Amino acid sequence: MAKLGVGVVGVGRMGRRHAENARSLVSEAKLVAVADVDIEAARRLAADLEIEHSYSSIEELVERKDVDAVVIASPSRFHLSHVQNAAEAGKHILCEKPLALTIDGVDDAIAAARGAKVLLQVGFMRRYDPAYAEACKRIEAGEIGTPIIFRSIGRDRQPPPLSFYQSGSGPLFLDSTIHEFDLARWLIHDEVAEVHAFGGTLACPELVELGELDAGMVNLRFSGGAIGNVESLRQSRYGYDIYTEVVGSKATLRVGYLQQTALTILNGEGVGHDVVDHFLVRFAEAYLNQLRDFVRNVLTGSQPRVSAEDARQALAIALAAARSQHDGRAVRVSEETRAEIRAAS
Amino acid sequence: MAKLGVGVVGVGRMGRRHAENARSLVSEAKLVAVADVDIEAARRLAADLEIEHSYSSIEELVERKDVDAVVIASPSRFHLSHVQNAAEAGKHILCEKPLALTIDGVDDAIAAARGAKVLLQVGFMRRYDPAYAEACKRIEAGEIGTPIIFRSIGRDRQPPPLSFYQSGSGPLFLDSTIHEFDLARWLIHDEVAEVHAFGGTLACPELVELGELDAGMVNLRFSGGAIGNVESLRQSRYGYDIYTEVVGSKATLRVGYLQQTALTILNGEGVGHDVVDHFLVRFAEAYLNQLRDFVRNVLTGSQPRVSAEDARQALAIALAAARSQHDGRAVRVSEETRAEIRAAS
Amino acid sequence: MAKLGVGVVGVGRMGRRHAENARSLVSEAKLVAVADVDIEAARRLAADLEIEHSYSSIEELVERKDVDAVVIASPSRFHLSHVQNAAEAGKHILCEKPLALTIDGVDDAIAAARGAKVLLQVGFMRRYDPAYAEACKRIEAGEIGTPIIFRSIGRDRQPPPLSFYQSGSGPLFLDSTIHEFDLARWLIHDEVAEVHAFGGTLACPELVELGELDAGMVNLRFSGGAIGNVESLRQSRYGYDIYTEVVGSKATLRVGYLQQTALTILNGEGVGHDVVDHFLVRFAEAYLNQLRDFVRNVLTGSQPRVSAEDARQALAIALAAARSQHDGRAVRVSEETRAEIRAAS
Amino acid sequence: MAKLGVGVVGVGRMGRRHAENARSLVSEAKLVAVADVDIEAARRLAADLEIEHSYSSIEELVERKDVDAVVIASPSRFHLSHVQNAAEAGKHILCEKPLALTIDGVDDAIAAARGAKVLLQVGFMRRYDPAYAEACKRIEAGEIGTPIIFRSIGRDRQPPPLSFYQSGSGPLFLDSTIHEFDLARWLIHDEVAEVHAFGGTLACPELVELGELDAGMVNLRFSGGAIGNVESLRQSRYGYDIYTEVVGSKATLRVGYLQQTALTILNGEGVGHDVVDHFLVRFAEAYLNQLRDFVRNVLTGSQPRVSAEDARQALAIALAAARSQHDGRAVRVSEETRAEIRAAS
Repeated sequence: MAKLGVGVVGVGRMGRRHAENARSLVSEAKLVAVADVDIEAARRLAADLEIEHSYSSIEELVERKDVDAVVIASPSRFHLSHVQNAAEAGKHILCEKPLALTIDGVDDAIAAARGAKVLLQVGFMRRYDPAYAEACKRIEAGEIGTPIIFRSIGRDRQPPPLSFYQSGSGPLFLDSTIHEFDLARWLIHDEVAEVHAFGGTLACPELVELGELDAGMVNLRFSGGAIGNVESLRQSRYGYDIYTEVVGSKATLRVGYLQQTALTILNGEGVGHDVVDHFLVRFAEAYLNQLRDFVRNVLTGSQPRVSAEDARQALAIALAAARSQHDGRAVRVSEETRAEIRAAS
Repeated sequence: MAKLGVGVVGVGRMGRRHAENARSLVSEAKLVAVADVDIEAARRLAADLEIEHSYSSIEELVERKDVDAVVIASPSRFHLSHVQNAAEAGKHILCEKPLALTIDGVDDAIAAARGAKVLLQVGFMRRYDPAYAEACKRIEAGEIGTPIIFRSIGRDRQPPPLSFYQSGSGPLFLDSTIHEFDLARWLIHDEVAEVHAFGGTLACPELVELGELDAGMVNLRFSGGAIGNVESLRQSRYGYDIYTEVVGSKATLRVGYLQQTALTILNGEGVGHDVVDHFLVRFAEAYLNQLRDFVRNVLTGSQPRVSAEDARQALAIALAAARSQHDGRAVRVSEETRAEIRAAS
Repeated sequence: MAKLGVGVVGVGRMGRRHAENARSLVSEAKLVAVADVDIEAARRLAADLEIEHSYSSIEELVERKDVDAVVIASPSRFHLSHVQNAAEAGKHILCEKPLALTIDGVDDAIAAARGAKVLLQVGFMRRYDPAYAEACKRIEAGEIGTPIIFRSIGRDRQPPPLSFYQSGSGPLFLDSTIHEFDLARWLIHDEVAEVHAFGGTLACPELVELGELDAGMVNLRFSGGAIGNVESLRQSRYGYDIYTEVVGSKATLRVGYLQQTALTILNGEGVGHDVVDHFLVRFAEAYLNQLRDFVRNVLTGSQPRVSAEDARQALAIALAAARSQHDGRAVRVSEETRAEIRAAS
Repeated sequence: MAKLGVGVVGVGRMGRRHAENARSLVSEAKLVAVADVDIEAARRLAADLEIEHSYSSIEELVERKDVDAVVIASPSRFHLSHVQNAAEAGKHILCEKPLALTIDGVDDAIAAARGAKVLLQVGFMRRYDPAYAEACKRIEAGEIGTPIIFRSIGRDRQPPPLSFYQSGSGPLFLDSTIHEFDLARWLIHDEVAEVHAFGGTLACPELVELGELDAGMVNLRFSGGAIGNVESLRQSRYGYDIYTEVVGSKATLRVGYLQQTALTILNGEGVGHDVVDHFLVRFAEAYLNQLRDFVRNVLTGSQPRVSAEDARQALAIALAAARSQHDGRAVRVSEETRAEIRAAS
């Protein structure tokens, strides 16, 4: 079988992981090239992975005929234009979340992909984690009855460096909490109708002058009546802690994973063990599964498991949360899409 | 040493537990009498515990000279008047939460106890649980740094019978979530300034016609900037699940306890164990510690660890949550006390 | 209903617990008297529990008409003579393990109780722990299929004081490991046929000159072919750790319980919690259930759940383990009973 | 840097995993060829991994100049002759355990590697598991004080197919328990002096006619006085369960890892989760780390972390355990090496 030629755009830690996966672990893919505005970083990665081609722009990369698909892992504010670059060149796209920073932007990205008839998949990789995938399957099978409460927490051990925010990552709710919003829609099989958010810069004083939140607490109301809450925190200090719970009318599911290695220490102070410290450790398998699925989707012409419409809806919730936090009131998610429509008209 | 003569008012499951504890397990107390409008129930309990005196009203009980203190475990809507009865008779009081169903009511209770110079302690028994007590101690010692996120969940395995609601238990936020509100204030060492609540009747269809919520999700903002969320659910089906977390700038504390017995079963389906099923199991030690502390407080003239002012503040949060859920907006806790003041003036 | 008059002999920590339970928590029992060669200790306990009678010998205690039953919690080397004292006085007996330090001694105790027609129950209290009781029930119900492997570990946090050994506690296998031997027989529903033991004085250097082992590791072979291993350790330093596992042809059961309170601490070093630190904490409920069962057995004329024959068989295993450790070879349990018979003839 | 050319001999599930790792995940290695007497299996693997060369014998494979090192994953009874083939051809060797089925065989393998001046490393891959590696490091650092008790359990979920035994896997103690024996020596930093074993065919009736044990329980005594116990079981039914504990005079370490995914299910029956089901899941990282270390050892001329002498000593313990089980007595490990010496003289 012919392999899918893959290019990776953006070679930060996330892009590097995608490139490593494409290079070695996805049998149907062939890593052809990487690109980054920091050409030295792109060259280093190409050398490490023993591939020939590295570029300083996506435009150069997508000129290659042997690149069939592009993985976009650049800073969030470039996602939209990079999607457009790739679509114009006729390349299939796996784009990191968020697809864009506005609803209009998402709509433009969708239009570009549709116009070019390329596949556009979005990087909500948690859906590819074995535990989350199994949870979704069991909910669909009716094992927990009707979902009534959703709860999800996402905490980083250490915050990203300040350069991350300055590069255009987007605010907390759009960059980080958006994972929880996607899980909410996906696991509850319902849309979020209304949100209320409190937030603060509580853990990382250095973020105050950037005006960035590092903690957010968002109440959710789903269309069908279920309620929920999600939290994001940039710095837990103890570990990378992702925890999700769906309470149903018959049973409850939890996805969480605190201990990293199998070692436990018992002494006069009690019992202790380590904690998973990084998302690339916790979700190593999910990122790999995601890339494999994307490659197969392109090769077989299947629809992606995470569509651009999913990205649009998750973004609408994130924008509503940001507005709620800012305005100090509960916000209906439909306000966001209407606001965009108003602005667009 | 002279023992403290104790009377128990209300002999439902909670009153029975207080009576059993007073009868056998609190060395400085002597259970003298029990009272309940259901005189047969009071008589049965007196017979079971081999004490002589049972009454059909608190008025009769507090006439006894050998009753020095009263434990009030009647339905919530009677708490205020029973506190007044006991105070007028000069008896010290341990009253189950909530102390009253309105801020005015709490103020009246406080005034009655002050006027009679009796001790008035409120039954937030979780503060007496060894794990919660240790958590509070460590927070006060600075072990977690500055608290930044508070989270607490309270779920019953099965809802109380319909008669419980009809007897005047007060709504969900006042009857159940009030435990989480008290923990929030106590563990964060700060006041809750603003709340936002979603709620629903999601787990117990039979509550719809009573107009009772069975699920509530309340976002919290503390005066000092910390944020939080608390949840109450009347029916989890899997067990009695109380879980609290305080994230600090240096470390995080969790209090939770799912497994009841030490037995684990491993078979082809995986690993399984049981779950604590009832609050009288989970908090058996807390109820006993609380009663011992109350008795000692009376005997030594000490101030109670949980004051009537604590009860007032927790109630204000609960009322704000109920208003938020009802009005569909975030509510400042100060609105409640001001509203009361307006109503009172 | 008339209550069972109970006397407690030996007021060390174990006897004190039995007395406390009999005093307050067993509704069908009435604690009448306590006895100890240390009369001051007996008097203090009587004062603490507000009972009238304390004695310096079992002989005085069993003279009381209102004592119907005796709980023997004296040092092990006195168990046999105290059982004989009680039986001669016609008192029912709950005796701490081991019933005696030789098979002949056990046989004498059994004969004394039979001759006096009194009930003789032995204190293998783990059978009354809810988790162990449930495990046994599930095994009997066939849930794990045929038991094939038995494993049990008993570790104290801190060793008993030297005075404990000097008072005549009996060696490690007879004093401590005997609990594991009883569990083995009870949970596997088969007899132990052969043992091999290694032992050492590894954790408590102060025991070397007493010639006492503080660590023992005993391989087991059951008559029906199942195999097993049990361990005793006098000083784990991290906590009181009792852990038992039964592997069956269909499923496996584990009984173990490490965490004491519900508090977990998460910080930069990882996740930590406390550990149960003492057998009176871990088995508080078991001791109480045992005493309640004993009292009911006497009052209703039922046979004890743990018979003197159980004590005899567990002792035979313990003696075989001691011999194996001493002789450096595997030993058949039947050697012990034959050796006794030879010695007796 | 030049890459190390690697050939893999034996393409069962273990050989396949080594080949996959060498092909994709060890940057300093280049997978050149695979060999198996089942040439079709070798061809399929070569095709799957897109390498050119497959052979039906190790002799053909080691003729290749571009093969610098060989990974031997054939059935155990061929290990010795394959080591000799590789050594004669001057290839470095990573050999699966056991290195041979007799002490003489191990000595011959060692002599062959020494004569050819090639590196000979043995596949005790658990030493490369992050948790075990950390445990060893902490013991060496003195964190637990003096080790006094060692305990290790190895249970497969399902037994290997009958063809596995027939192909010459060696008996239980040599094939499976040998992992525990290696851990014992490595973690206690002492030699095992004496063993006693019980065994049986308890879980897999189909093994009775092959005369194979499926369950073994081995008591250990170390030279320095520490004691221990290890267990092997071919069929646990609930999962792949590897558990090791080292009790020290100051603290205790445990390595164990039951839950596979992060999903927990809570319902009316209790709480449940899945279990790791296979050694290639549990030790995926260990196998990879081991191969990386081997490749680096060869490229840098370093000594292997697991030497042939380690293999010899572990085998001596395994043979002593087998003899103990067979003869029904405790056996000193030195008997085995002396017996071999006698037989050799």
